[in-house]
Amino acid sequence: MNLNFASDNWAGCAPEVLAALERAGRDTTPAYGNDDYTRRARAAIAAVFATDCTSHFVTTGSAANGLALATACPPYGAILCYEASHIQIDECGLPEFYTGGAKLVALPGVDGKLTPAIVERALAQMPERSPHLAPPAAISITQGSECGTVYTPDEVAGLASIAHRAGLKLHMDGARFANAVASTGASPAELTWRAGVDLLSFGGTKNGCLAAEAVVFFDPALVRDFEYRRKRGGHLWSKMRFLGAQFEAYLEDGLWLRLAAHANAMALRLARGLAEFEAIQLSYPTQINEVFATLPDGVAERLQAKGAHFYPWVTPGDPAAGRMQRFVTSFATTSEEVDRLLELLRAELVAH
Amino acid sequence: MNLNFASDNWAGCAPEVLAALERAGRDTTPAYGNDDYTRRARAAIAAVFATDCTSHFVTTGSAANGLALATACPPYGAILCYEASHIQIDECGLPEFYTGGAKLVALPGVDGKLTPAIVERALAQMPERSPHLAPPAAISITQGSECGTVYTPDEVAGLASIAHRAGLKLHMDGARFANAVASTGASPAELTWRAGVDLLSFGGTKNGCLAAEAVVFFDPALVRDFEYRRKRGGHLWSKMRFLGAQFEAYLEDGLWLRLAAHANAMALRLARGLAEFEAIQLSYPTQINEVFATLPDGVAERLQAKGAHFYPWVTPGDPAAGRMQRFVTSFATTSEEVDRLLELLRAELVAH
Amino acid sequence: MNLNFASDNWAGCAPEVLAALERAGRDTTPAYGNDDYTRRARAAIAAVFATDCTSHFVTTGSAANGLALATACPPYGAILCYEASHIQIDECGLPEFYTGGAKLVALPGVDGKLTPAIVERALAQMPERSPHLAPPAAISITQGSECGTVYTPDEVAGLASIAHRAGLKLHMDGARFANAVASTGASPAELTWRAGVDLLSFGGTKNGCLAAEAVVFFDPALVRDFEYRRKRGGHLWSKMRFLGAQFEAYLEDGLWLRLAAHANAMALRLARGLAEFEAIQLSYPTQINEVFATLPDGVAERLQAKGAHFYPWVTPGDPAAGRMQRFVTSFATTSEEVDRLLELLRAELVAH
Amino acid sequence: MNLNFASDNWAGCAPEVLAALERAGRDTTPAYGNDDYTRRARAAIAAVFATDCTSHFVTTGSAANGLALATACPPYGAILCYEASHIQIDECGLPEFYTGGAKLVALPGVDGKLTPAIVERALAQMPERSPHLAPPAAISITQGSECGTVYTPDEVAGLASIAHRAGLKLHMDGARFANAVASTGASPAELTWRAGVDLLSFGGTKNGCLAAEAVVFFDPALVRDFEYRRKRGGHLWSKMRFLGAQFEAYLEDGLWLRLAAHANAMALRLARGLAEFEAIQLSYPTQINEVFATLPDGVAERLQAKGAHFYPWVTPGDPAAGRMQRFVTSFATTSEEVDRLLELLRAELVAH
Repeated sequence: MNLNFASDNWAGCAPEVLAALERAGRDTTPAYGNDDYTRRARAAIAAVFATDCTSHFVTTGSAANGLALATACPPYGAILCYEASHIQIDECGLPEFYTGGAKLVALPGVDGKLTPAIVERALAQMPERSPHLAPPAAISITQGSECGTVYTPDEVAGLASIAHRAGLKLHMDGARFANAVASTGASPAELTWRAGVDLLSFGGTKNGCLAAEAVVFFDPALVRDFEYRRKRGGHLWSKMRFLGAQFEAYLEDGLWLRLAAHANAMALRLARGLAEFEAIQLSYPTQINEVFATLPDGVAERLQAKGAHFYPWVTPGDPAAGRMQRFVTSFATTSEEVDRLLELLRAELVAH
Repeated sequence: MNLNFASDNWAGCAPEVLAALERAGRDTTPAYGNDDYTRRARAAIAAVFATDCTSHFVTTGSAANGLALATACPPYGAILCYEASHIQIDECGLPEFYTGGAKLVALPGVDGKLTPAIVERALAQMPERSPHLAPPAAISITQGSECGTVYTPDEVAGLASIAHRAGLKLHMDGARFANAVASTGASPAELTWRAGVDLLSFGGTKNGCLAAEAVVFFDPALVRDFEYRRKRGGHLWSKMRFLGAQFEAYLEDGLWLRLAAHANAMALRLARGLAEFEAIQLSYPTQINEVFATLPDGVAERLQAKGAHFYPWVTPGDPAAGRMQRFVTSFATTSEEVDRLLELLRAELVAH
Repeated sequence: MNLNFASDNWAGCAPEVLAALERAGRDTTPAYGNDDYTRRARAAIAAVFATDCTSHFVTTGSAANGLALATACPPYGAILCYEASHIQIDECGLPEFYTGGAKLVALPGVDGKLTPAIVERALAQMPERSPHLAPPAAISITQGSECGTVYTPDEVAGLASIAHRAGLKLHMDGARFANAVASTGASPAELTWRAGVDLLSFGGTKNGCLAAEAVVFFDPALVRDFEYRRKRGGHLWSKMRFLGAQFEAYLEDGLWLRLAAHANAMALRLARGLAEFEAIQLSYPTQINEVFATLPDGVAERLQAKGAHFYPWVTPGDPAAGRMQRFVTSFATTSEEVDRLLELLRAELVAH
Repeated sequence: MNLNFASDNWAGCAPEVLAALERAGRDTTPAYGNDDYTRRARAAIAAVFATDCTSHFVTTGSAANGLALATACPPYGAILCYEASHIQIDECGLPEFYTGGAKLVALPGVDGKLTPAIVERALAQMPERSPHLAPPAAISITQGSECGTVYTPDEVAGLASIAHRAGLKLHMDGARFANAVASTGASPAELTWRAGVDLLSFGGTKNGCLAAEAVVFFDPALVRDFEYRRKRGGHLWSKMRFLGAQFEAYLEDGLWLRLAAHANAMALRLARGLAEFEAIQLSYPTQINEVFATLPDGVAERLQAKGAHFYPWVTPGDPAAGRMQRFVTSFATTSEEVDRLLELLRAELVAH
């Protein structure tokens, strides 16, 4: 039995997405996005967000974030983010590359989330000192967060309000946006533009697509340069239809939310199982498809030796001083896998 | 009937590639290239090139070229290329972006190809003037070329010899490398490392893949930084297996060469047909899957009005002063389509 | 006797400039340009150009050009320039660095100058192909040119008109702007904003300053980002007063034009002397303080062995196939030096 | 009476430096550093550091730091530094610009200094995760620090040892290096290469020069790219002699240390005076020419209204929650100025 809790990107593709790719593969269409698949996918996104937004497709969340931030921040600007956010510690300097050298200001978080107090304190320590201090230009938050938590619409709105008052844009890294929507029950609109989000990296890859991400612009002023930047980043697909086809299938009949709800449910099942062991501490509330926990010494290694896949999670601001483990579920995780992991764990804890 | 001569990237996917994607989509594998699909695809490339080269996968030829050039040229260096090469006029400054600001030195060509005489004249006009002049660091050539021609192994070797004598790397943009191999009959090894190519952008997308390109390093010293650069460019796929799976299918049993040979044959059929019309001038020899021709005034527009898709081709150094048209065939082009285009054309030329 | 015809930057400083530096050196003032020297220098520039322009000071012409172009061209844009212009062949990729990777499109010139026909032909070969082709954003011309010639106000206006019709900015590299003003007799206003120049790199260093250049913005929309870019380029001096002090002294009572007129006169004296030798060909008209000539084989080397300093001048588009020599005069060149060089030359030509 | 405690860069020039500039200004020399002034200045630096180091001159500390870091860190690397260091908060993203997008990792400090424990904790939170995490490539420390303190040779060696064990370079921002040498009594060699510093930004501007900084390479492997990078940053002076002339005068007969010792003594006089007031808290030990203190509400504003110049100092990690003031002395500060400031302050504190 495959016990994959290493990452949601170890999973394959939803069958509906594969089928859509196959249909598109037999077709002949114009290149570079001038095709019906792209048009329909854009319309589907606008429908999901219940607004007249503009979408552009790329294939990695990295690219979506880098290109989105480059439209929101000049090369000499600063972007406020959580100190263990994906853009800060998992992209090898990608935001710096795409923006042309903007500065990421790494802030502490509460359960992986920025709060108004944290952001206001940071801004207070960055008074206007033009041209010496890189002027703050954007705030980037991750929904669902890198700690497996979610921002409520009110929490997003609180940060948006600070951002906009200070003249900053609010970017949302939504690599696991589907999981956040499924978790909160709030609508895509409530979690984004109605709460003040200016632009969203809307992920499909981790939740059943092969490789498909959309940058969704709620602020039309930000769209202008994007197409040039995507091209020179090498992210304009010639056979763009294959991105549109994925998103079309992904959003059709709520597939994206069904997949995400399943992944979330599997994580919750795991978290509840873990919570029953006294020897194990959960690091954060489990609100999407990620569970973080501290295990007794040696247990992780022994589970891994028995075929369970998951990673240690060492990050700045880490509350567990380097002893935390991360377990990720996906649309493809089964309850049998979860239960089998818990069984293995029980056996370990009893044995030692 | 679909009369697509606009681009080989209007075509879909070879069925074998689609089938491979579907199989991989049902699998669970490690992410970021630590999977068997990637390993097998790399081995297949090494076998095709009959050498122990290193390959890395990305999804666009743009990315392959940009990242390859960034490993071969420092930010303050210069890259010599044909004045109408793809990297110079179709990438919106992508090589400049990926290298951190290197300078492309645009040179005239003969039928779209650099020659030793052209390169030597250019180098003579760039004597060492450190640190004032950006020092030449690489030559980039396109195989098959942007004018539908191919470099013979000897022609490649002639340029490689100049490059290496001057301390430059030789990069080959092989977006249509399969077509060049099928056209010349030379082996992949003869056209690349045996002739002195240091690194190759090896294309799959235009010739039947969904989106798959490999950067093949024949010079191991160039590999070091690539992985970091790919990551920060947003081109490291989490579900990397889907790139490996495409390349595996593409190279299996010579599929890539069968597809390319067909596309080449369709172009030749078209070129021969065009050559029969006195009113039409072919701009370059037809050696791969592209045909360039000058039509009498108004003919192109009338053909397009009848459903034929192809583009006018205006470039620096253009011999036809802006009146050239480009016709591209692909693995999916049928002889019926070619014949139908020629029929439409005959009718036009007779009528006016 | 010192026979310096190597460059105007081998000369020292005008005594008036040194005296101004000494006065400023004994003073205490606010830093970073909030001082009276800077204010007065800006006012002096506005007076010289007879318009309400905005000026910013830096210490090298390189920096002035790079920063000016970065305000006029996005990272994905293109800048049209003469193929042997300083920004193209003498800055080691500086415009690419400052713009974040914009593309310089190198064009042929007539006596070192772009013409409307050359620029229009280039633009015709760059039809709008967004986002594939880097969109032209600026034209940069050098006044006086790298070939020692000058643009008349009408010639500037002709290029400005093409630029503005196409939505491009016109930048003037005025490293030797003083020499051009002194040569044409046209006013600074006539040679710049009245003819349509949007921003000017206004040089002082080559003409008697220690190190002082101004970027003069006639288009106020371009000023916005400049201060941030200058800071992050490391070109904001803390003791900025020393740049203002130089410019104040340089412009006072027409010093700059007297110095330039002298340098021009010395070049003309040399050119007339050279023209008398049948064996010597002048490459371009001598309109400022530079003379280009082709000498019989071996003569340059023998003159240099006798203590004359000047450089061979090998550039793209070079009419003399690598055999040209450049002689530069400066505010400090004496007629004795010129005559002595001509004497040495005469002796050489007679002897062989 | 001028009460300048705003910055050491409000001061002018040491007379010896001005005299050297004047002498050099009357001379004719080759450009771009091929002159005797530059050669002598380099030799003087090698003598001061008692080793065969390589020096290159620029005009701002900003440029020295940016160019030095660009030679020590690849575009995808990370640089560890103090969270309120000049490179992090006062350069508008300059290190990011010069490195091509490297990431600054901002760490807390003790009295403005990094410690082995702080650096080791940070490195432990950055385990090797190639290519996801930007790999640490350098540590940058400031000597004297931004809080007016100094690193002892042992403290430098402790950090160098961690750096080198982890494969990182150690850069020292020595904008106030003279003050640190004068303060510690340690030799320049003991404070740099003998303690493990790989490259130093050696400042002259704040301590009596007009604008002169040297990048001193103790690790010869780092020199290679520097000259190209300096050129394309626009920091290669044509009249380079004027930088060499300043450094020659600055180092002659220990002038630099006499000037620094005076500035330090003035700061100590001020700090001792402030310490006598109960209502005033000194924020850090006063070890060079900067004093940081918290004054009762309103006092700073009233002193400023009476002509005293100094700045509030709000930074990340600020212990005084935004209420700190910074007082800087210079080579030109007199004891009368210090005493007058203390008098004004006494009057204020008594009055309220």
